[in-house]
Amino acid sequence: MALFVQKFGGTSVGSPERIQAVADQIIRYRAQGHQLVVVVSAMSGETDRLLGLAASVAERPAPRELDVLLATGEQATIALLSMALQARGCQARSYTGPQVQILTDNAHNKARIKAIDGQRVMADLAAERVVVVAGFQGVDESGNITTLGRGGSDTTAVALAAALKADECQIFTDVDGVYTTDPRVVPQARRLARVTFEEMLEMASLGSKVLQIRAVEFAGKYNVPLRVLSSFAEGDGTLITYEDEGMEQALISGIAFNRDEAKLTALGVPDQPGVAHLLLGPVAEANIEVDMIVQNVAPGGDTTDFTFTVHRNDYQRALEILQTVAGDMGAREVVGDPKIVKISLVGVGMRSHAGIASTMFQTLAAEGINIRMISTSEIKVSVVVDEKYLELGVRALHDAFHLEQPMTA
Amino acid sequence: MALFVQKFGGTSVGSPERIQAVADQIIRYRAQGHQLVVVVSAMSGETDRLLGLAASVAERPAPRELDVLLATGEQATIALLSMALQARGCQARSYTGPQVQILTDNAHNKARIKAIDGQRVMADLAAERVVVVAGFQGVDESGNITTLGRGGSDTTAVALAAALKADECQIFTDVDGVYTTDPRVVPQARRLARVTFEEMLEMASLGSKVLQIRAVEFAGKYNVPLRVLSSFAEGDGTLITYEDEGMEQALISGIAFNRDEAKLTALGVPDQPGVAHLLLGPVAEANIEVDMIVQNVAPGGDTTDFTFTVHRNDYQRALEILQTVAGDMGAREVVGDPKIVKISLVGVGMRSHAGIASTMFQTLAAEGINIRMISTSEIKVSVVVDEKYLELGVRALHDAFHLEQPMTA
Repeated sequence: MALFVQKFGGTSVGSPERIQAVADQIIRYRAQGHQLVVVVSAMSGETDRLLGLAASVAERPAPRELDVLLATGEQATIALLSMALQARGCQARSYTGPQVQILTDNAHNKARIKAIDGQRVMADLAAERVVVVAGFQGVDESGNITTLGRGGSDTTAVALAAALKADECQIFTDVDGVYTTDPRVVPQARRLARVTFEEMLEMASLGSKVLQIRAVEFAGKYNVPLRVLSSFAEGDGTLITYEDEGMEQALISGIAFNRDEAKLTALGVPDQPGVAHLLLGPVAEANIEVDMIVQNVAPGGDTTDFTFTVHRNDYQRALEILQTVAGDMGAREVVGDPKIVKISLVGVGMRSHAGIASTMFQTLAAEGINIRMISTSEIKVSVVVDEKYLELGVRALHDAFHLEQPMTA
Repeated sequence: MALFVQKFGGTSVGSPERIQAVADQIIRYRAQGHQLVVVVSAMSGETDRLLGLAASVAERPAPRELDVLLATGEQATIALLSMALQARGCQARSYTGPQVQILTDNAHNKARIKAIDGQRVMADLAAERVVVVAGFQGVDESGNITTLGRGGSDTTAVALAAALKADECQIFTDVDGVYTTDPRVVPQARRLARVTFEEMLEMASLGSKVLQIRAVEFAGKYNVPLRVLSSFAEGDGTLITYEDEGMEQALISGIAFNRDEAKLTALGVPDQPGVAHLLLGPVAEANIEVDMIVQNVAPGGDTTDFTFTVHRNDYQRALEILQTVAGDMGAREVVGDPKIVKISLVGVGMRSHAGIASTMFQTLAAEGINIRMISTSEIKVSVVVDEKYLELGVRALHDAFHLEQPMTA
């Protein structure tokens, strides 16, 4: 018998029929003798409906009241799922975030969980009840309703699992696990049985939108084993855990990629201390997020070339800012390219194996793909290439590292 | 400056446009310097939508979970109204029933208010905020969400007014006050400026569905001045208060009537102690509500005729039960009539004036209307007549007592 916290997102509970299907699935887990805490989101479409209502009464709805409004979405789902369970003869009890004391700070619309009082839930579990908890919402110290922001239900589930010392936090979603890369790009992409928190973080931030980054961080911090499963199909999904010293570790876990990147370069900037801050400060102030940053000293000179990437939507604004700033600094020229993409190899195995990067560069070169930028971290190598090479590059790398086969020693 | 608790029902907040209109109206009251606590219901249609969802996942939804579900209706309204107020530059803050500590018993779906902690609301009023509270809902001692049953928002408003010692509890509705009778039946029907709690109770229980009976009882018990006003039109509405010794009191305040009544009679029942209980016990056990009860000893015999009325929907079931029970008791015959109505004169003035009933009977006789049953209380005379005489009888009585004129001395 194990204690699982299971989270079902909006699509999984998107209609009465779906809710019935989730109830049936919970009954199957119960039949195996497990204790279950179930975290649910608002029915899909509900949050947008509520936002629409808010927009129709106020141009900029007050954040506190928006939380009161949005919190009704999950509250409806917990009631409906509990009813469906009880109709199947399964003892169940629902709790809103405030009821189960998911204590947050008071940053409405994007609150962070500070503490959870698991007493009430533990008492219900001891009484053999399934406990159904509203995701995404909590309460601040003054008793105000707060929400964690979109996707916060994953975080609720992980936080509950940590507070209850659950054996696993299981995130049910519309994909059946984490893949070596996007199967729409590489049909041979393989579901990973395991992946480490660090790898998952790199994958998530690089665009594999299976899990909320905050939930993964939280799970890593509190060492909550996290499993991604399909709501609609049987299977073991992907387990996300701490690196296990004993386990044979793949060199590369997967290939992530980001479309929609853009690249900007200031050429011939006088090479002086603080140049990065002078160039990027105004960009940050305009609320533009900068991703990769590369700086090279130009050969034989006292000037430097400075390159960074931003989201493609921010390209035009970033370009204008950079032209002004770099001009003031006496840079020779500002150039940019809004049609680039980033491809990244991710794997904790890189730590102990040299030569991964060179295999990567070689593979891309063999396909005639020109690398425009390189950036590395302990468990990741990212390259920027022209947009048109995205699929070719990802497929070539997937082949080169034999990711279609389970485990390369 | 006065403190008003204002309640707006589902129709008044039935769309974003209506909510905006309510916000505008609140702003006008604020401009007059009043302190306001606003109680709102779910948007019209919302409760039915939620009940539909519940019905689609469970045949008999668990009462506790039904309350969790239904409570989302008012929660959405308080948020939307608060947003609309803030968008107009008016400080406002919303509270759910549990947040403002409307403590109830744990009778889910029909809970009763036990206590209200007004501290939080008073603090907001002192800070010049409009306080928006969800009607219809509360919390039991264990922190479970409860609801007061349909129409409970009126009760919430009155209970809040009592707890806060408000100057008036103002119920905004789709009628502009309490009338001497239904204006659809008597076009000359007149809005009453004042009516007593007792009269209002008799009117309400007799079918003038302006206010929830429980709310009126509550207001009477705690001496909360209650005013019925229109959400859609200007006007002073009707004030419902304790009888004022000094005020000139009309003989008759109004004429109420109940369609949809049915009458059953057991003829020739042996006249023995406990006959009423023997006949009506099984009817009550079948959850059929009995309204008027009349018993007569048949002339010169040891048998009695026993008549009572029920709602027309219960007629067939009541008839079957009565046939069995009366048969067992040796009654001569059971007869019934499902096409009768009840007309009632209501007025505290009756207490000190004789002759009201006889004027009533004389008026009906002059119109050729046969009275089938009579029942009286201290401030009411009710007669049962054939359905077809309803309009004729009500109009004749309205004329006879000059109810179209304000105040008959």
